[in-house]
Amino acid sequence: MRRALNLAALGEGRTSPNPLVGAVVLDGAGQLLGEGFHARAGDPHAEVGALAQAGARARGGTLIVTLEPCCHHGRTPPCTEAVIAAGISRVVVAMADPDPRVAGGGIARLRAAGLEVIEAVAEAEALRLNRAFVHRVSSARPLGILKWAMSLDGRTALPNGQSQWISGPEARAWVHRLRAGCDAVIVGGGTVRADDPLLTSRGGRTPEPLRVVISRSLDLPEAAQLWDQAVAPTLVAHGPIGAPEQRQGTARAEATCAVLDRLGVERLELAACEPDPLLEALAVRGCNRVLWECGPELAAAALRQGCVQELAVVIAPRVLGGVAARTPLGNLGLEGLDLVQSWRELERRDLGGDLLWQLEAPQPPADNAKPSIPEASTARPGSTP
Amino acid sequence: MRRALNLAALGEGRTSPNPLVGAVVLDGAGQLLGEGFHARAGDPHAEVGALAQAGARARGGTLIVTLEPCCHHGRTPPCTEAVIAAGISRVVVAMADPDPRVAGGGIARLRAAGLEVIEAVAEAEALRLNRAFVHRVSSARPLGILKWAMSLDGRTALPNGQSQWISGPEARAWVHRLRAGCDAVIVGGGTVRADDPLLTSRGGRTPEPLRVVISRSLDLPEAAQLWDQAVAPTLVAHGPIGAPEQRQGTARAEATCAVLDRLGVERLELAACEPDPLLEALAVRGCNRVLWECGPELAAAALRQGCVQELAVVIAPRVLGGVAARTPLGNLGLEGLDLVQSWRELERRDLGGDLLWQLEAPQPPADNAKPSIPEASTARPGSTP
Repeated sequence: MRRALNLAALGEGRTSPNPLVGAVVLDGAGQLLGEGFHARAGDPHAEVGALAQAGARARGGTLIVTLEPCCHHGRTPPCTEAVIAAGISRVVVAMADPDPRVAGGGIARLRAAGLEVIEAVAEAEALRLNRAFVHRVSSARPLGILKWAMSLDGRTALPNGQSQWISGPEARAWVHRLRAGCDAVIVGGGTVRADDPLLTSRGGRTPEPLRVVISRSLDLPEAAQLWDQAVAPTLVAHGPIGAPEQRQGTARAEATCAVLDRLGVERLELAACEPDPLLEALAVRGCNRVLWECGPELAAAALRQGCVQELAVVIAPRVLGGVAARTPLGNLGLEGLDLVQSWRELERRDLGGDLLWQLEAPQPPADNAKPSIPEASTARPGSTP
Repeated sequence: MRRALNLAALGEGRTSPNPLVGAVVLDGAGQLLGEGFHARAGDPHAEVGALAQAGARARGGTLIVTLEPCCHHGRTPPCTEAVIAAGISRVVVAMADPDPRVAGGGIARLRAAGLEVIEAVAEAEALRLNRAFVHRVSSARPLGILKWAMSLDGRTALPNGQSQWISGPEARAWVHRLRAGCDAVIVGGGTVRADDPLLTSRGGRTPEPLRVVISRSLDLPEAAQLWDQAVAPTLVAHGPIGAPEQRQGTARAEATCAVLDRLGVERLELAACEPDPLLEALAVRGCNRVLWECGPELAAAALRQGCVQELAVVIAPRVLGGVAARTPLGNLGLEGLDLVQSWRELERRDLGGDLLWQLEAPQPPADNAKPSIPEASTARPGSTP
């Protein structure tokens, strides 16, 4: 299963809307006969690749696979039938497929055909590997990562607005790798106006992640690196034309749309120009994981609307100071420190002198019906003055 | 020498204005005969303790000591004479004593008496151990540590001003230990008004560090934990009475002084109510190391005036948000990111889920007369957009 999980990870960032899957076929003596992984949507599933490699010798053997084999016709035929046809006698599965078209049906089909099925082997690792896919299937929203780079004193710019570059080259290269693992990168109109960013993975992923601008005002520049569709695709999301949030007026919004349409930049009109409806639309397009690289107000709105499951914070060992200097987040509406939960550490490491701290959102309060699980040592008690 | 350095460290936080010193006496065969360390000012020096333990067997032996033995009469007689009288034939020294009353004179005296002296053994470690003492002797100011605790998004309070507690109990206990290693803890009047802090090491050091309030306005509360002199001594530093910075008026300043005098709280009138003159006065009182635990404006002033050589930043894995929320530092007057140097990491570790990052100030530009030394890998190039 360790090998199958490693195989699965090879598809990282390229399988959406599908999950990452790896598979290994062994004969009765435990000898490796074949292996495979899902490389991208539309390509053969992992099990099919592993079975093909094993060939006729798979008969009577064991299939080890990180995700329950599918039992439905999608872009490819059901894997369960391929497994049965190959004469496999035992299937070891890490996790059930949360996709409602499968959801245990694959395992049931295999058992009905007389195969032995062992479930939940290394399930935690498999769930972790596919957390973005699981999140999208269960919430109809992609998993959101919010990234910011700040100084040691929590500044994202000098008081004069200068913000490039707070972090060093190693941290910036890491951000390119982070983008390569995401299906879309989201900024607000303010970031386009202030920084004219490129937002690509610098070739780390082909095709590049979708670059998304969410703009309330539709007051966007005529020229911007994001408008060059030869580099990577860009989507501009906005509210209905003529909405009051278009503070520069309807004529300005219409002019921006005309420029974007002429340049071939895709537009998406949302019923409300907010983070959550945007993510809903991106999930429909098959995004499992998106990266928020936006300014403080949009970041705060994304957090408030539950659109952020992970944080990636780069802290540079420099002090900037400044009462008026920009900070990572706008108002979150928090009223008491005892209400502020701790995020849980995923990783913490050095990036050429800068510090990278990745965390995941606090667990929601436990369901009363479930047994309460004591929190890890990072939990903190309420305010005790 | 490793053992002597470990012995020296046992005096941490209690020897000011003296340095930390450890000493070991060996016989000709390398057998341990005696050891000692300097426990507090006025107590015997490390060499004297080690020689006393060794007794007559020290004759012909080796003294290993972390700092050049003194050659002047201070509170205790010169150690050089004790070393010579004990019949020691070889002295191994980690670093010269920067005190102008010694400054190589001790080593010269030993050599003149016919002893072999080996210098600069583990010098970097010895300099590191006594960096506060060396800083005070060379600059006539104590070494300053600036500490703050902030959220992951660089906030030291919620927008409503609530600030207790951002970090967890383990981080707060660590701050008590940090205080125990300092001779004074400094806050501004705003912190007294807002937080009414206790500022002690909670018994980690006896006597407790001097608690210092630097107040421009002298608009201080009549009742405050800091005014209880039974707990720990407190010093209130201020400018001349009647100065325009006393914005609540001279009568208010005089009323505060009357309250402090009645309660037995010591006052210190500075020619200018600024961080640097305060540190100058604290150096005269024998402070080697002080801790700044102040609000953003005083912290920024201390940084601008070169009163901070180390940072101790506690980062809690929580997001607070808030456009109006307090941040660690006021304006530093920086105009370009390429002018902002990186601080150098001393230590980075977990404190019960919170992150502690300790750093030291960037090296000042190298003297042209000295060979230029390439910077470590944490150095960052200038802005390269």
